[in-house]
Amino acid sequence: VLTVSTDHFADRLIASMRGKQSRLVVGIDPDLARIRRIAEFASVPVEDALVGFSTGILEACAEHVCATKPQIAFFEAHGAEGWAALKTIIARARSLDLPVILDAKRGDIGSTATAYASHLDPDGPLGGVDALTVNPYLGGDSMEPFLSACDRWGSGLFVLVKTSNPGASELQDLRLADGRRVCEAVADSVTAWGASRIGQEGRSCVGAVVGATHPEDVAHLRTVLPHAILLLPGVGAQGADIGQLRPAFGADGLGAVVNASREILYAWEKEPDAASYRDAARRRASELRMSIASTLP
Amino acid sequence: VLTVSTDHFADRLIASMRGKQSRLVVGIDPDLARIRRIAEFASVPVEDALVGFSTGILEACAEHVCATKPQIAFFEAHGAEGWAALKTIIARARSLDLPVILDAKRGDIGSTATAYASHLDPDGPLGGVDALTVNPYLGGDSMEPFLSACDRWGSGLFVLVKTSNPGASELQDLRLADGRRVCEAVADSVTAWGASRIGQEGRSCVGAVVGATHPEDVAHLRTVLPHAILLLPGVGAQGADIGQLRPAFGADGLGAVVNASREILYAWEKEPDAASYRDAARRRASELRMSIASTLP
Repeated sequence: VLTVSTDHFADRLIASMRGKQSRLVVGIDPDLARIRRIAEFASVPVEDALVGFSTGILEACAEHVCATKPQIAFFEAHGAEGWAALKTIIARARSLDLPVILDAKRGDIGSTATAYASHLDPDGPLGGVDALTVNPYLGGDSMEPFLSACDRWGSGLFVLVKTSNPGASELQDLRLADGRRVCEAVADSVTAWGASRIGQEGRSCVGAVVGATHPEDVAHLRTVLPHAILLLPGVGAQGADIGQLRPAFGADGLGAVVNASREILYAWEKEPDAASYRDAARRRASELRMSIASTLP
Repeated sequence: VLTVSTDHFADRLIASMRGKQSRLVVGIDPDLARIRRIAEFASVPVEDALVGFSTGILEACAEHVCATKPQIAFFEAHGAEGWAALKTIIARARSLDLPVILDAKRGDIGSTATAYASHLDPDGPLGGVDALTVNPYLGGDSMEPFLSACDRWGSGLFVLVKTSNPGASELQDLRLADGRRVCEAVADSVTAWGASRIGQEGRSCVGAVVGATHPEDVAHLRTVLPHAILLLPGVGAQGADIGQLRPAFGADGLGAVVNASREILYAWEKEPDAASYRDAARRRASELRMSIASTLP
């Protein structure tokens, strides 16, 4: 019997990719105005609507996804009620054996970054997520508290390298005097931060966010980031083409995960005949999973 | 009678600088472990400790500061309780006529940035802060929802340009092929974003964060950012020298504000004879205010 340690984030995520035969991550971006159009959530309290809708999505999609990525902004927008909802949703994801990547894009100086790193603490305010997205603008010392969290709790990070939005290139593609672009310099830092943090599967716990909307960058940055798991947002509402993502996964097919959020959460809006938002989400997740599988090496 | 409109953030902040004869901002970074050592907060619930300590600081320092800058990470670290505390503290600052700059350093793609911009909404989860710190790594389209909030609610932004931490230079000082550094390219974007948003006092609602720990950059970036109010962190615990900040304020002395957080909040730890943490904070805020005043043109 081959046993792979699961106290390293990359090993845990890869075990989930293998177990589910999926590279799909379902993003949880609950837009209250849209959720209110579903009869069962039309008039319940905010926290109940967020929890009910989001756990419904998780339960419907769990068999098709290897992880979930809650977007913290959609919970913050509802203050304390939103935070209570997020905590409940994270606990539900955990009970479904789904690694949780909290999309928070935090980044700050040392003493403040330490406070943000509490999101990775099992005794922290959210009960401890598996991984966090982080912003690299403040430099390596701003990453230290997050890297310490990885070492202490087996957590993971996904550092913003090249984001999926149209304006990403304004700063991230600026050409440096040494010939690299800014995003390539960040990628080199990601490689350095992860070099001493490689799990049994050969992948680092320091991953990278690379927008699926930039397929040429996905292929190039894969070579600059040999040990990083890539988190690829931008499929669905943002228009990325899954067929062009093949290079991201590497020879073993385990080098990347693809996030879809609105495309799955609001699939029911385009399917008036669906039995429920859950059914529409499950069907769309299954289709995306298959579409990704067909691009794997 | 000269009446200056206060529906523009820069005009509002400058009115407060003039009214208080102060360029000092008190940062609210409540570290629960340290607060617990004050007898009155040793055993009260978390929310009460955060609110009690922070409002005590605001009341003690209000006469000496022109604004307050709560650091959201220290509230997030306590989940829903922390958010409830933050909301109460913001309301107290407003009742003391202190503009509130929420130090959140948010930055994300459009639909998500819109959710974060709700922090500026008077009907939002925090009751609407005056200004928000934001991270520029994602580019101009990630700023649009925040800029719309400025136009709609008279809010302000402080964009991270050069941060106060030792590692700031790793990314922010990278030399571009066109001769600029990354932080200078960001500064040029700040100028562009603010160009159509200048108030009656001649300052834009799009300000810039420049670490007081880099005095040569403070002087240089002042010239690159003609209309921006600079927010200068790094005084006190981080060791910046107020005497070197003179160029930041511009000829009229209204071009910058200086933040101090730990230096004021935990002044009592260095003054065992102080009557209370409030008295120690008030005295330290008064000293810092005077020290800044003596550097003004």
